[in-house]
Amino acid sequence: MADIAKRFVNNPILRPADIQPSLPELKIQCLLNPGVFCFEGKIWLLLRVAERPPQKPGKVSFPVLENGQTKILEFDANDPDLNTSDPREYKYKGVGYLSTLSHLRLVCSDDGVTFRDPGLPPLVGANDHESFGIEDCRVATLADGRYVLTYTAVSANGYGPGMRVTRDWRTFEHYGMVISPSNKDCAVFEEQVGGDYICLHRPSGVIVGGHYIWLARSPDLRHWGENVCIARSRPGMWDSARIGAGAAPIKTERGWLVIYHGANEQHRYCLGAMLLDLKNPAHVLARGTEPIMEPIAPYETTGFFGNVVFTNGHLVDGDTVTLYYGASDEVICGARMSIKEILKTLC
Amino acid sequence: MADIAKRFVNNPILRPADIQPSLPELKIQCLLNPGVFCFEGKIWLLLRVAERPPQKPGKVSFPVLENGQTKILEFDANDPDLNTSDPREYKYKGVGYLSTLSHLRLVCSDDGVTFRDPGLPPLVGANDHESFGIEDCRVATLADGRYVLTYTAVSANGYGPGMRVTRDWRTFEHYGMVISPSNKDCAVFEEQVGGDYICLHRPSGVIVGGHYIWLARSPDLRHWGENVCIARSRPGMWDSARIGAGAAPIKTERGWLVIYHGANEQHRYCLGAMLLDLKNPAHVLARGTEPIMEPIAPYETTGFFGNVVFTNGHLVDGDTVTLYYGASDEVICGARMSIKEILKTLC
Repeated sequence: MADIAKRFVNNPILRPADIQPSLPELKIQCLLNPGVFCFEGKIWLLLRVAERPPQKPGKVSFPVLENGQTKILEFDANDPDLNTSDPREYKYKGVGYLSTLSHLRLVCSDDGVTFRDPGLPPLVGANDHESFGIEDCRVATLADGRYVLTYTAVSANGYGPGMRVTRDWRTFEHYGMVISPSNKDCAVFEEQVGGDYICLHRPSGVIVGGHYIWLARSPDLRHWGENVCIARSRPGMWDSARIGAGAAPIKTERGWLVIYHGANEQHRYCLGAMLLDLKNPAHVLARGTEPIMEPIAPYETTGFFGNVVFTNGHLVDGDTVTLYYGASDEVICGARMSIKEILKTLC
Repeated sequence: MADIAKRFVNNPILRPADIQPSLPELKIQCLLNPGVFCFEGKIWLLLRVAERPPQKPGKVSFPVLENGQTKILEFDANDPDLNTSDPREYKYKGVGYLSTLSHLRLVCSDDGVTFRDPGLPPLVGANDHESFGIEDCRVATLADGRYVLTYTAVSANGYGPGMRVTRDWRTFEHYGMVISPSNKDCAVFEEQVGGDYICLHRPSGVIVGGHYIWLARSPDLRHWGENVCIARSRPGMWDSARIGAGAAPIKTERGWLVIYHGANEQHRYCLGAMLLDLKNPAHVLARGTEPIMEPIAPYETTGFFGNVVFTNGHLVDGDTVTLYYGASDEVICGARMSIKEILKTLC
């Protein structure tokens, strides 16, 4: 077992019951995968809040957005056209839906451990390409004061990276879906490299390819190109089925440190690390053979979708990276790691 | 039956036997889906040439590129790890391959009907993201003399739109994979709209979404964003399973005319039409309920992959559009249509 994470003693730090649902008829099913940033002297999490109505016996229901309003779709649980074998994604007559509708909620903290909901407006799906919700938001903090939010926008059209940019967390510029679907796990670097903005993203492979990490470049954050695959899943290993980047890579003397998630065929999600060349981040210098964090705590092994640790937000302070992560797709936790120790695992 | 195409009387105009293989040990399995353009007073087709070795009894073999060299992979036909149920795509131990390796070949003509191979260098896969070949190249002719080539680049990393730009058909600027995989059928408009370059593309839907037509915008052709879905496949109709754009949309007084392919669940590929707003091409003004061309000629119903008409190249002369198209994924044909007649089918 390879796990160098020092978990917060009071994990989970946030559970569904700690947050108010967005509507009285909805229940928060999962709190997960926060983006993280500092603003006005506080530490903020941008939580993914996944909601659905309380489930009635013999029925299956889930919400979608229609013209900005939440609408509940309800089906008979025994309807032969309904497939609910994956608790996260349903199919009805061959058409895909999500079992929950996600939006993003801001909570803040003075110490990075105890968070409170200041009651700010939630960030919700804002167009036809976000009607099944917005998920797993990375927040890249640029030196010029801009925060770049990249999240998974989901709708009947597909899922792909949406982007919003803010300076004040009150007004947001909407850049739309910046990378073509089917794609998620988009993490923007916090500084330009060779004059370009850089991001990692995770297209879905169909027939050829897989769920691999790709890199793209942009002159303006809105338009992306020069897509190259930089890392694949590894057959027989802990990250054999899929991989995807966490938050913005961390600049170190040895290279850009990427903390990423990997899952195997049993959908067990761990965290791993790789190192990218400082000047050409499409070049992978090193990648660890073992995970740096595995789902081992009870709240990581059991829940809405057990055996998952998944991060897309962290804070760096000297040698310490504090990871905020979703556990079992249900609760939010924290853990600290030494960057030096992570680098030691990279051959 | 809805078919307004006037097929060339001497269809197919090009068959695999008309072209020399790129290597003596390879056989041309299919000629298909040419890009079309005018250059130095001649009409040119940029053919997709799909090759593989002659198949030995009891064996299955196909070529891939490795460091620019063609390498033959060979398997026992009875290998239980091998799946060849689709003649176009194989799986070995769950990993996807293509049954043929495609490159692009230039042929030219004075009359647009009889084409000859002038022996120009072929365009071949040029990097790690093109090692399974390059396919179905659209050629957009810009007013400034540039030809913009968009093709499907395929490799073990996935498939996505590659781009090369040329003025003289001798030297090419390589822009790499301009849109994230899994994606194909990328058609660039031949003029900018509202200051942006525009393209149509066809991401592959996974779980949510489908094989739909999307639109993206670019400041420089290299980087693309503002992705929006403009048209979906239509359950119960001839284009129920997948759709994708043909060549560059045709500017008409009523709007941008898009000729597109659509297939149903039985993989029967027809051509259809839709009309996009001149100023905001993300807005679909009209879409025909019936196809404008169906696979009905013998060379369209029978072949390597029968019941297919597929176009990604045309020439416009007044009211006449001359479509060059692949039939049954094996031979190349031509047909003429009246643009007015196409527009009449659009309600």
